[in-house]
Amino acid sequence: MRNRITDIFGIKYPIISGGMVWCSGWKLAAAVSNAGGLGLIGAGSMYPDVLREHIRKCKSATDKPYGVNIPLISKYSEELMEVVINENVPVVFTSAGNPRIWTSRLHDAGIKVAHVVASTKFALKCQEAGVDAVVAEGFEAGGHNGREETTTMVLVPQVKRHLDVPLIAAGGIATGDAMLAAFALGAEGVQVGTRFALTEESSASEEFKRFCIGLGEGDTMLVLKKLVPTRLVKNDFYREVEAAENRGASAEEMAEILGSGRARKGIFEGDIAAGELEIGQVACMVDDIPTAKEVIDRMIDEYNSGLERISRPLL
Amino acid sequence: MRNRITDIFGIKYPIISGGMVWCSGWKLAAAVSNAGGLGLIGAGSMYPDVLREHIRKCKSATDKPYGVNIPLISKYSEELMEVVINENVPVVFTSAGNPRIWTSRLHDAGIKVAHVVASTKFALKCQEAGVDAVVAEGFEAGGHNGREETTTMVLVPQVKRHLDVPLIAAGGIATGDAMLAAFALGAEGVQVGTRFALTEESSASEEFKRFCIGLGEGDTMLVLKKLVPTRLVKNDFYREVEAAENRGASAEEMAEILGSGRARKGIFEGDIAAGELEIGQVACMVDDIPTAKEVIDRMIDEYNSGLERISRPLL
Repeated sequence: MRNRITDIFGIKYPIISGGMVWCSGWKLAAAVSNAGGLGLIGAGSMYPDVLREHIRKCKSATDKPYGVNIPLISKYSEELMEVVINENVPVVFTSAGNPRIWTSRLHDAGIKVAHVVASTKFALKCQEAGVDAVVAEGFEAGGHNGREETTTMVLVPQVKRHLDVPLIAAGGIATGDAMLAAFALGAEGVQVGTRFALTEESSASEEFKRFCIGLGEGDTMLVLKKLVPTRLVKNDFYREVEAAENRGASAEEMAEILGSGRARKGIFEGDIAAGELEIGQVACMVDDIPTAKEVIDRMIDEYNSGLERISRPLL
Repeated sequence: MRNRITDIFGIKYPIISGGMVWCSGWKLAAAVSNAGGLGLIGAGSMYPDVLREHIRKCKSATDKPYGVNIPLISKYSEELMEVVINENVPVVFTSAGNPRIWTSRLHDAGIKVAHVVASTKFALKCQEAGVDAVVAEGFEAGGHNGREETTTMVLVPQVKRHLDVPLIAAGGIATGDAMLAAFALGAEGVQVGTRFALTEESSASEEFKRFCIGLGEGDTMLVLKKLVPTRLVKNDFYREVEAAENRGASAEEMAEILGSGRARKGIFEGDIAAGELEIGQVACMVDDIPTAKEVIDRMIDEYNSGLERISRPLL
């Protein structure tokens, strides 16, 4: 299949791996790109020097297009941008900030740009800023999330009604059936987080991966709404957060409970009880730890057989 | 199109109108059934005598199958059940309770039964209870909602993995594109609330309808989580609820703020400021007040053109 997303990024399949903190290192990005998708390195958990190293290793592991996700709230965002420009990274996904600041500078460096949003309002700001594509991410997604809580099922078609540049759906997409649903809603690509976080090549700890493939429905929840709304696994740390929120704790108290380095502790170091475990609702459908290539191959098979299944028009 | 849902209920299109309090009277139910869908009368806001009247008017307005939704938490659930059995209603959708109690008695009366759930666990309880179909309703839906906050995009395929009886998707479905997405996720039918609540035949007040078609993204939110999680429009009443929740108000305080008759006041009487305005996230995509038949005709057209649009397999 070719569409605007495959053409813009020069990829075979319109499947992009999310740039997830502590999961999306060079190994995962290169594996996704080698399998025909677009692998993203997640710079949100990286110092600029660390990002440079990941980019160089990624380049030596794949000759296919790959990208870097840079959350604009990172205190190193300037330096991270310098790194991606100097290293001639072909694609940058930005998130958590104003796309206007960086899009034209990245374009000047020959870099394709997409920005992640959780509302039509910000999708249109991205379009005005000249991005090549927009990622619309729904409430079911893991980690940082929008304040309006709009789900993928509502957000994607609503953004699609107003947007001209190609749309990538994110949130709740771990299978080819869900990819097909996203395309039915008007997306031309999917950004997949949770499913790729729980692969062999993900840099998350084995403890985190094994714990997450055992999760069921209702085992994650969107909390920390007085800071940045974040979807977390309901572990001991979550319950502490929940209790504080139920008693009406202030943003300052919440920031203190969160502390720093919590996501690293949970995802990378594997402290399942005390860490901040960011993963999407769709973890309930993820039961194994395959390679990234297996994920993509399965998704394409499921997409095609799903299409066959529903391809009888209503008469 | 024929599938298990159209066969079980004897309908032309696998589109069911939700049994919404103060919206789903005989007029809406008959209009949906006459247009080829399955119209439900919403008994949740009705005394048994009122339900009987609605059923009789519905029967005189359509010779097509129709149904009644009975929330099992209604204090009149016993009497409402007697009414549907005595009136030979062909279909009953139950919700908010244990499906085991009523399914066999309804079956003995020759009535087809579906039950509404928000999790796989309860979907499987429905199947054990012998229901003919299960409705899986996601977090984006209006009004009463599940505690686990699982969205339609995740809930439907997850339920589908485990369920043998036919599955009806609900939550966020107002267009044929969303219906197609639901079918991609494994549903064989859709239950549509918000879109039918805002039609000519809906018994909601004109004030409520006109206000709701002006809503945008983020204008509803799931609150009242210490009582029954409910998706409401962010009006003055909502802000009172929100403030109380933010200061950690108890369930008792929340019940006092809610009071009684709030949904009637908002939806039926049109008190937009002080009423409890139950509507789904997808209200942001609803911009007009057509007839129920126009809704169904549009959905079928959109479904078929959406299918055509995505019907190229990934190569």
